[in-house]
Order: sequence, then structure tokens, then C-alpha cells
Amino acid sequence: MGELPNLASEAVLKQSIPVPESFVEVKGIDYSKDSAYNMTAKDLIASMGSMGFQGSSVAQACDIIDNMRSWKGKHKSELEEHEIKGAFDDEGYQRTTIFMGYTSNLISSGMRDTLRYLVQHKMVSAIVSTAGGIEEDIIKCLAPTYMGEFSLPGKGLRDQGMNRIGNLLVPNDNYCRFEEWMVPILDTMLEEQQANANKENCYDNDSNMWTPSSFIDRIGKEINDESSVLYWAHKNKIPVFCPALTDGSIGDMLFFHTFKSSPQQLRLDIVADIRKINSMSMEATRAGMIILGGGLIKHHICNACLMRNGADYAVFINTGQEFDGSDAGARPDEAISWGKIKADAKQVKVYADVTVVFPLIVAATFASQKPQ
Amino acid sequence: MGELPNLASEAVLKQSIPVPESFVEVKGIDYSKDSAYNMTAKDLIASMGSMGFQGSSVAQACDIIDNMRSWKGKHKSELEEHEIKGAFDDEGYQRTTIFMGYTSNLISSGMRDTLRYLVQHKMVSAIVSTAGGIEEDIIKCLAPTYMGEFSLPGKGLRDQGMNRIGNLLVPNDNYCRFEEWMVPILDTMLEEQQANANKENCYDNDSNMWTPSSFIDRIGKEINDESSVLYWAHKNKIPVFCPALTDGSIGDMLFFHTFKSSPQQLRLDIVADIRKINSMSMEATRAGMIILGGGLIKHHICNACLMRNGADYAVFINTGQEFDGSDAGARPDEAISWGKIKADAKQVKVYADVTVVFPLIVAATFASQKPQ
Amino acid sequence: MGELPNLASEAVLKQSIPVPESFVEVKGIDYSKDSAYNMTAKDLIASMGSMGFQGSSVAQACDIIDNMRSWKGKHKSELEEHEIKGAFDDEGYQRTTIFMGYTSNLISSGMRDTLRYLVQHKMVSAIVSTAGGIEEDIIKCLAPTYMGEFSLPGKGLRDQGMNRIGNLLVPNDNYCRFEEWMVPILDTMLEEQQANANKENCYDNDSNMWTPSSFIDRIGKEINDESSVLYWAHKNKIPVFCPALTDGSIGDMLFFHTFKSSPQQLRLDIVADIRKINSMSMEATRAGMIILGGGLIKHHICNACLMRNGADYAVFINTGQEFDGSDAGARPDEAISWGKIKADAKQVKVYADVTVVFPLIVAATFASQKPQ
Amino acid sequence: MGELPNLASEAVLKQSIPVPESFVEVKGIDYSKDSAYNMTAKDLIASMGSMGFQGSSVAQACDIIDNMRSWKGKHKSELEEHEIKGAFDDEGYQRTTIFMGYTSNLISSGMRDTLRYLVQHKMVSAIVSTAGGIEEDIIKCLAPTYMGEFSLPGKGLRDQGMNRIGNLLVPNDNYCRFEEWMVPILDTMLEEQQANANKENCYDNDSNMWTPSSFIDRIGKEINDESSVLYWAHKNKIPVFCPALTDGSIGDMLFFHTFKSSPQQLRLDIVADIRKINSMSMEATRAGMIILGGGLIKHHICNACLMRNGADYAVFINTGQEFDGSDAGARPDEAISWGKIKADAKQVKVYADVTVVFPLIVAATFASQKPQ
Repeated sequence: MGELPNLASEAVLKQSIPVPESFVEVKGIDYSKDSAYNMTAKDLIASMGSMGFQGSSVAQACDIIDNMRSWKGKHKSELEEHEIKGAFDDEGYQRTTIFMGYTSNLISSGMRDTLRYLVQHKMVSAIVSTAGGIEEDIIKCLAPTYMGEFSLPGKGLRDQGMNRIGNLLVPNDNYCRFEEWMVPILDTMLEEQQANANKENCYDNDSNMWTPSSFIDRIGKEINDESSVLYWAHKNKIPVFCPALTDGSIGDMLFFHTFKSSPQQLRLDIVADIRKINSMSMEATRAGMIILGGGLIKHHICNACLMRNGADYAVFINTGQEFDGSDAGARPDEAISWGKIKADAKQVKVYADVTVVFPLIVAATFASQKPQ
Repeated sequence: MGELPNLASEAVLKQSIPVPESFVEVKGIDYSKDSAYNMTAKDLIASMGSMGFQGSSVAQACDIIDNMRSWKGKHKSELEEHEIKGAFDDEGYQRTTIFMGYTSNLISSGMRDTLRYLVQHKMVSAIVSTAGGIEEDIIKCLAPTYMGEFSLPGKGLRDQGMNRIGNLLVPNDNYCRFEEWMVPILDTMLEEQQANANKENCYDNDSNMWTPSSFIDRIGKEINDESSVLYWAHKNKIPVFCPALTDGSIGDMLFFHTFKSSPQQLRLDIVADIRKINSMSMEATRAGMIILGGGLIKHHICNACLMRNGADYAVFINTGQEFDGSDAGARPDEAISWGKIKADAKQVKVYADVTVVFPLIVAATFASQKPQ
Repeated sequence: MGELPNLASEAVLKQSIPVPESFVEVKGIDYSKDSAYNMTAKDLIASMGSMGFQGSSVAQACDIIDNMRSWKGKHKSELEEHEIKGAFDDEGYQRTTIFMGYTSNLISSGMRDTLRYLVQHKMVSAIVSTAGGIEEDIIKCLAPTYMGEFSLPGKGLRDQGMNRIGNLLVPNDNYCRFEEWMVPILDTMLEEQQANANKENCYDNDSNMWTPSSFIDRIGKEINDESSVLYWAHKNKIPVFCPALTDGSIGDMLFFHTFKSSPQQLRLDIVADIRKINSMSMEATRAGMIILGGGLIKHHICNACLMRNGADYAVFINTGQEFDGSDAGARPDEAISWGKIKADAKQVKVYADVTVVFPLIVAATFASQKPQ
Repeated sequence: MGELPNLASEAVLKQSIPVPESFVEVKGIDYSKDSAYNMTAKDLIASMGSMGFQGSSVAQACDIIDNMRSWKGKHKSELEEHEIKGAFDDEGYQRTTIFMGYTSNLISSGMRDTLRYLVQHKMVSAIVSTAGGIEEDIIKCLAPTYMGEFSLPGKGLRDQGMNRIGNLLVPNDNYCRFEEWMVPILDTMLEEQQANANKENCYDNDSNMWTPSSFIDRIGKEINDESSVLYWAHKNKIPVFCPALTDGSIGDMLFFHTFKSSPQQLRLDIVADIRKINSMSMEATRAGMIILGGGLIKHHICNACLMRNGADYAVFINTGQEFDGSDAGARPDEAISWGKIKADAKQVKVYADVTVVFPLIVAATFASQKPQ
């Protein structure tokens, strides 16, 4: 049969360089430890760090979140007047301004309770969401969303008035209730707008016109329900941005309202809001991003962070892939090329459905101990 | 060794029902035909219909596009005055109102020429895009975008001022040029706005305030360049919607402009635009959707089609998956449950990067023959 | 501006049927409970059940695993002699035969420790893996695998002799050590084979020829290392199937060995192994599948379960999608059409990287309490 | 409102380096050309090269295929006797040895005709597939596969004996026919094996034992049908490798056959085949890989190419992603780290379902002109 050609054995048995000391060994869970039974979130995460693949990305995300939360700058008393801007902790030290973004479906899912928890305890500084991420929070105060299945046929559901979101179902009556709740508020908002309409320079003053963020703040106030993310955002003065606020049920209501209110019409200005979010980014001493999902919410926070020449921390969690050149699928490294994330920032992308990893991540970080 | 248990042989050799006559055999390309060499788009598509998997979905997409384009309703002369709304062909027959949506990255890619072609020849009725999908069209008139690689490290690119979009590169100077081009236009637009500012009821009349779609129409007019999608949209009165127009470079310019113009400020109202797109949907005799990519552009067109109790035709092309409950990944059947697509509509989702399939699809449909 | 057309309001405000009592409300984590701080795996999973999307799929996977583990049939004493087959618990009751499959990369990752734990404690009945899933288990006993990054350039790594597996690195010296370890064993195995070579009917008796599973059992015995999955599989008589055992480093060694041993040659017969795994399926009183990853390992277990007209429980965890018609991406419902999963089986597919969810799943199920 | 901070304007308007001359501009289809109507495959591909994202990857794949096909080495007459190995063209010049791999589902789809075309015209040198990719080719000669839908419920299909593969349906009767066809062939093959059983050193000679590749060659001969890939592979002496040949319907038949033939048993040795494919790789003057799909077929070809220290050309087409560390999702650059692809090889991965891109790719390359 002949001899083994050197070609193959040299290729297969090529020698490697000595392993650098800095190398970290891949390791899994040590089941000989007592903590290895019904593990806690923190112990799980600790084990996942050296697990490889997305397991280690999840652990890295926790590490970055811990970092952005624990960073502490100067005390207010050490700063000049004009330097006192951005976020401060209760004791007066500079802290990271955290921009959190989430897509609509997460508010439809049980993640809403987790997001509410973060806002309730002032663990984030600003929010960006899409229209559904705003209205579904209010609607859930009026009526529940239910578990369904991905495979339920659409025709039967439409006949029953059951709207499907992945494996969730929202009865269409929920939107009818939302309309009843919304209309009187729109009436009042219109009145307030018109009170400014005849002033000189009606366009000049921000307080004259509604913007998506002021609209959202108002409905957060009106819903007055402790289960609501927007209620706590209002209460804690955490701005919620949503430039395309009309892209959903609120848009439907606003559309209907234009017929009712004609010739008057409520207006929502998006320029004031871009000024507002960009200003927050520039004023932040440090900026962190936690972005759950892709699309507009991801781009909007990244774009705001360009105004400060890049975020200092970034955690992306989504299922998008880069091969189609979508912003949703872009790795943090693409944002570095744009100056939206600093080259030396701590950053990670976790490739996973948010509902699978964020409960664990929050349990091991924000909720690893009871808030004071 | 014993006998073969019946269990296994019955499970493996279970008899099937007679094959229904309606069943279509899976077949590939018949290479005995002369047309099988260097095939044309139409021949390829014809062969892909019975190929299975996404090959057949691509063929189905072509079929649906042919259907939405060839549908012909009543002649204007057969209609009452109040019925004359929606889209008509050159001869005065009702035709399908086609809503086309595309994400920003497609304008960055070479797909822009194809999208421009469709708009130039009035093959679509309305467009929805995201901010990048607007501004990159203008920027490309000022300076080119270049081929790059997915793996180019972000730090080096930022040092060189090269922004990466997937495997594309945009020199940052392009944005500087865009700013130079944009600022005088923003100045003029502000002047025009302020001319209305002191009128009574300044908020009441649509013509008083800029909206994303009127802003886009204006820059389409100003660029005055036949390579531009927006130029042709302006020329052909095809509205371009972009509710979150501030989410990108235009937003940066508007933000900077607020400092320059202070205390005056340009405003962009998104309520008038939701009225406009929803009205187009309601007035359409038939409505078709061609949605390239996911996120806001997909939801926005679907939501508009809810106003007419569902689109009649739908072609989705994107890489999103349903398992994470995202709207991007939702199958057309989910939109049926919401009344955004009719239960009996012709609809398909093609799971593919748009740049891979849309050139072929357009070649086999819209561009299968020279427009007159 | 005219009146709101009924069309839109009827479509948007369509009434839904009364919500059926069986409907389960979407809910997240109740942070008012003390257990909501640094939650344990079981508490996290309990909360994820009503979370929606893949969060609820993970919870469902745990539920199914609990079910397959807790099922208990008749006692041996109640059975006829010929009925005593399949799996039994320590007390003599019938239990579920659990087929576990995993791809090679999971053994490279830290999941190996978890998989070893399951085999060590006899929590599974049979294993299917690919070649890398076999050899990397042995190699890790000889030298470690290290953490790396997905973006490390291949050329530089090859120059250093560092092989990349996702974000892991395996020094090529590990394979050189493996070769040193393997060759004398192959020599001995060849001797043992040749001892049968001159017998009459050398092909007729299974004990005459090596098969992938007997080969694997042998190296599990030889490695004699408690950190090894294969060691415990040997010790606990849990068969490990790998029909394409030659597709990797073992294949390289076997290839080299043919030159050394010529004209003698080690043989590995795959027919005896298909008989062995199919027989296990037929003899199982109940059959469960836990399949981590896609490709051959998924198909092989499903195909074996066809021999019993379908598995009773199925948990698939992988990142494949169905749109390309791949077996890897196929939903459990596709396997139902083939008779590989029973129509009324408890089954779920979790769309996630295994390293992200399986540590949590195992912590909440197999490892929720200390094994006795 | 204050002044625009320099921070933002410097970040946004950062200057870029002069664009290097080597940069290629992103461009789409030039619709002013006459060839822009109902374009041919070659024209489409030419336009896609500068389109970006996967559009340009598809064009790159065509370019690489053209390269591997057009490469021409020395003439046989210039070579020493021992150098005459590997692939030669009809005129006696060295050419690239092309390894083509495809998953089972592609044979189920209409791609089979295209794959058959490549084999019929000797355009590839060796094939690797999985069990289904072998047996479905034969089965299609006995009865057709049909178009179905991804959403057809499994229970109903099983009741009807209709097996689903993505959006395809295979009546179970097809497998019954396959069994009828297969059994007499297995009988004969067993006889032929047993004729060698009593020889001295029955394991020593390759001709004594069946291997997957010799088994496949035999059924390719027996089916004797010009629509079959395997028929042409047999006819053209193109080896077809399938180490896990038992993982499917052939495995079922072999399993059943063991009961029938007992105590005799057909054997399939996989060691001889790994020697065969590895030898082909080592003997190849140049080696190219065209791999359609992921899993075993991808790994097996890459592993064989390690024996020659890397392939010279590589085209991967699949939908796998790298984030889960799977071999299926690994980029070509990972294979470079292993020495399976040369560092300077021409290589590309196209992220797409094969049925969407391969018809176009073949039309623009292998089938761009009639074979002689």
C-alpha cells in the first residue's frame, strides 16, 4: 500500500507554539461543588464564563453590566458648575448613563416585568423603544396578553379577533379598550396644544409642542399603574424615546382622532426629541448601552452615542446576523468603525432570543441582591 | 438473531394514501432544453417553481408580483366621482396600489439602482424606509460607497474615518459633504416654516408644518439627480414615508441645526404622515406589499394595510426568524391574524438576503421587458 | 377632512371572542418575592414558563425532561420473561430509554462537564455524537482547550498551530499527543481483529469485527479518566454511537495506521451498530430524545425512534431553521409526519445555542438535587 | 439653547483618509443597457459583484468556480510516472480535483437535476453526501417527490403516510418500493461478501469487504437510470462517499436484512473509505471544494483536504451561523486555522439556502455554455 506521504503527516501533526500563559482553559460546571445543585443565577454565570460559544458571551454581558453599574466618577462637590451634568448616584457621584433599548415584542412577553423592575429602581437612565413597546405596556394595564403557539393558523385567529405575536395572543378587545382609554387623553392633549397655537412663534418653544417622549411621559402619568414601565419612567423622570410613535395602535388612534378633531390636529414633533437624546449622550460622563433586539431601537441608541464619540460599554442581545448587512445584525465592531462605540469599550453581542438569556442576566446582575 | 418485530416493519413500511391528482412533482432544471444554457431570469424562475425550499418561494414571489402588477379593475368612466381614488394605470383602469418598503442597507448596497428603476418607471405607489434609506440615497449623489469586507477591524476603520456597513465602506467625508449640502436647505425650510408660525392656528393646517414625507419630497427635488430614488419619487409624486427620519445623519444635521437656528427650530410632525399613509391604504382598490427587510418598514406598511382590513398581495423578503417573536421574523400568516393581510391574499415570505434574490426577481418581473 | 371611514374602524376595532378560560396569561418574574433575588435555576424556569417566545420553550423543555425522567412503568416482577427489556430503574421499574445526541463542538466547549455528569450518573441510556464529539473528549484528558475569539484571523492561527472552533482554540500539539496515545491502541485492536480473521465465517459474528460503538467503548476504557464522558459511558455500559467515526482526528489516525499496518487493516463495520441502536429503540418501553445540535446526530436518533413508531418525548435544542428544508432545522412536527415522534408525544424545539440554555436546563432538572 | 459642543461635531464630521485607488465602487444593475431586460445568469452575476452583502458573495462564488475549472497544470507528457496522479482534463493536462458535498434535502429538492448534470458531465471529481442524499436519488427513480408546505400539520400527514421534508412531501409508499428494489440487491451483495469470508486474511484486502462507497457505486450501477446522480457517478467513476450510510432508509433496509440473513450479516467498513478519500486529496494537484449545506458533508471534505495541507479553492453555501461554534456555521477562515483551506486560497461562504442561489450559480458557470 505504500508509505504515508509526509505531506499528510506534516499537515496533521504540525507543531503548535507553546501555549501563552494568558490563555484561559475551557471549563464547565464543577459538579463536585455543593453549589452545583439547583444553581443560582450568579453561580451559573460564573461557570458559563469559560464555557465557550454564547455561554461565555452571556457571562461577558453580565460582567459588562456589572462594570457599567459599578463605575463611579467624581463627586459633585469636586466638579465645576458647568460640569455637573449626566447621571449621578444617590450619594452624588458620577455614574454611567445607561441607555436601554427594547423591541415591542418584549413588552408583549413576560420580559415587561423585568424591564419595569429596572425602571422602577432607576437602574437605567433612558429608554428607546418602538411604538408597540409603548402601547402594549399601557394595554397590559387594561387587559392581559395570553400564551399561544407559533403554529396557530392566521385565518382562524382573525375570525376570532385574536392577534398573534409569535407564541402570544392578544385579544382584539384589548385594543378597543385602549381606544376608549386613549381618546379622552388625546382630546385633552389637543386642548393643551391649541392653547399654545395662537402664541407668537408657536414653533419656537419646546413646551409648545408635543413630542413622542412628552406624549409617552403623559400616558405614563395617566395610566397610574405600578405594573407599568411607563408609569415608573414618568415617576422617575426617565425619558422614553420612540421617534416612530405613530407606527402602531397609538398611530391608529391618532389617525382616527384627526377625523374627530378636524380641522384641529394633534402634532408630534420628532426634532425636539433627537435634540433631547443626543444631549443626554453628550452630557453623560460615561455611557452604556443595553440593547435588546434590533432595528430602530438599536440604531437610535448607537447614533446618539456617536455624539459623544462612542459608548463606553455595550451589550447587544439579538438574533440578527451580519451577512445581510443589516444594522440589526451588525456586530459591535461595526459600530466601532462609526465612532458609536469606543475602540476600547467593553462590548459584547449575545446571539440569542432575549427571553432566554435576559432573565438569567438580570438575576445575576441588577437583581442579584434586593435593591435598597 | 431472532425475527424482525412487526413494530418496526409496520412503522417503516406504513402505506400511504394514493397521491392526489393535484399534487405537483418536484422537478429541477431540464438541461436537455437549449434554454438551459446561461439561462435568462424568466427561465430560471420558471424552473425554480417546482424546486422546493426557498427556490420555490422565490418563484412564488415572482408570481405574486406579476399578479399584483397585472390586476386591472374598472375604468374611471365606470366609476362614480367619489369612487375615483387609489391607483390607476395610464389608460384609466384601477390598478394595485403597491407599497414598497426597504431598509437602509439596501440603499447603501447596489440594490439602490434597482429600487430607483422601480420608482423611475412608476412601478410602485408609495415607499417606506428608515432614515438611512433616505439619506444614503442623497449621499450617493455626492460621493460613492465602496466594497469592503465583513471582517475589517473597527478600530482601524475608525482611525481612517471609514464607516462599515456589512461588507461596504462609506468614507466619513461623504457625511461631511452631506452636511454642507444639507445646511442651506435646512435654513430655507426653517424660513418657510416660520412664515407660517405667526398665523392663527398654526398647528391646524398640514401645509403649515413639515413632515418626514414632505421633507423627503423636498430633498428629492433639491438633489435633482437622475441616479436618485428620491429624485424620481418627487418627480413621480410617489410619497416616501419615514416616521423616524431623525434616526441617522439627517437627525445629526437637524440636531446641529437647532443650535444654529436657536431659538427658532425646525419641526417635523409625524401625525400628518400617518394620516397620509393610512389614507392611501383605505383608498386603494387593491393593495400589494413588497417588503425588503424587517423592522419598522415592515410593520409600518402592514399596519397601514390594517386600515383596509388587509392587503391583497404580500411579498416579504428578509432573514428574520419567527422564534423570537419579532415582527421582523413573523410569517405573513401572523399578519393575517391581525387583519393586515387578507386571509385569502396571495402571500409569501422568502427567507433570503435581499441582494441575493431581488435582482433575479426584478429581472424576471418588473424588468422582464423594456418599459415603454 | 371628512369622516373616518367605517372600513378602518371596523378593521381596527374588530371585536374578539370571549377569552377561553383555559388561556394562560403572559407573566414575567414577580420581583416582590424574596426568591426574586439571585434566583435559582428552578425558580427562573418556573417564571419563564409564561414568559413567551423561547423563554417559555426552555421552561417546556424542562417540563418534558422532568416527565421523561419521572415516568415509571411496571415492575420487573409483573413482566413476562420476554417483556423484560428496555431500561429499568434501580428498584426494577420500567423507565424511559433516553437517547442523547450532541455535536462535536459541545464536547470542545465547557458543556462536556455537564454531559459527563449525565453519563456518570446514568441519567441517559444511549449517546449519539459525531467524530469530534468522541475524540475531543479523549484529547481533553491529554491537554486542555482554550478560550479564543470568533474573529481571530485564520492565517495567523495556522502559523501558530492553533486550531479555532468558534471562540475556542485547540493547540495542534493536542492532536500530536492524541496520535501518540492512539497508535498503540490501534495496534492492539488490529491484533485482536486479526485473531478472528482466519476463523470460518469471519464476517458472521458481531464479536469478530470492530464497530464504531465497540471502538468507542474501548477508548473509553483505555482513557481511564473520570473527567471523560467516554470513560463513564464504558463504565456504565451506555453505548455511544457514531456511524461516521472516521470523520475527524480518529479518521486521520486510522488512515495513517493503514500505511503502518499494511497489508493488514483495521475495519469498522457500521451495520452491526445500526442493528444495535435500532434494537434499543424497539426494546424501549418509553423512548425520549434530548438532541443538542443538528445534522447527523439529530437524524440518527430520530431514525432509530421510527423503529418503535415514534419517540414519546423529544427535546431539540439547536439554531437551525426550517426554511432551507434541512433536517437540522426541521421542527419536531416534521418528525411526527415520518413516525419518528408520536403524534401525542410531549415535544419542543428550543431555538438557541446549547451553551446558553443547557446549563440552566440541567441545573433545573437533572441537577436540581444531588444524585444519590 | 447654547452652542453645539465640539465633541459632537468632531465625532460626526471626522475626516476620512483619501479613498485608496484600489477601492471598488458599489454599483447595481445598469438598466440603460439592453441586457438589463430579462437578464441572463451571466449578466446578473456580473452586476452582483459590486452589489454588496451576499449579492457580491454569490458573484465571488462564481468567480472561484470559474477559477477552479479553468486552472490547467502540466501535461502528462511533462510528468514523471509517479507524478501522474490526481485529475486530468481530456487533453491530458492536470486540472483541479473538485470535491462536491451536498446534504440529503438537496437531492429531495429539484437541485438533484442540477447535481446530476454536474456528475453526468464529469464536472466534479468526488462527492460526499449523507444517507438521504444517496437513497433519495434512487427512490426518485422509483416514484416522485411532491411539493407541499412547511406548515402542514405532522399528525395528519402521518395518518396519510405522507412524509414531510420542509415544503416537500414523500409518500411512504416510495420507501416500500425502495425496499422491494433493495432487498434482492442486498441478498446478492451478501453472497458476494460471503464468497470472501472463508479466505485467509479476510479483513486484509479491500476487495473483500463492502464499504459505503462501493455499496453506492453498486446501487448506481443497478438503478441504471439516466436521471440518477449515482448512475452517472458509477458510469463516470466518480466516487461517492457517505461514511454514515446507515443513517436513513438504507440503514432501515440493512437492519431488516440482518434478521433475514442471520447468522450471516452484510458488513460495511468505513476505514477503507477514509483511506480512499484522503488519498484523492493527497494526489490532487489542486483541490477545490464546493460544499452545499453543513454538518458531516462539510467537515468530511474539509478534513480530507487537511491531508494536502489545505484546499486551493473553497465555496461554502449554507445557512449556518458561527455564533454557536458549530462546524456547519464556521466561516472558511476557521478552516484556514486548521490547515484545511490554504491561507491564500480563493474562498467564500455564501449565506443562503442552496436552492435560491445554486441554480443561478450553475447557470452562470458550469452551464453557461453547452458541454461538448
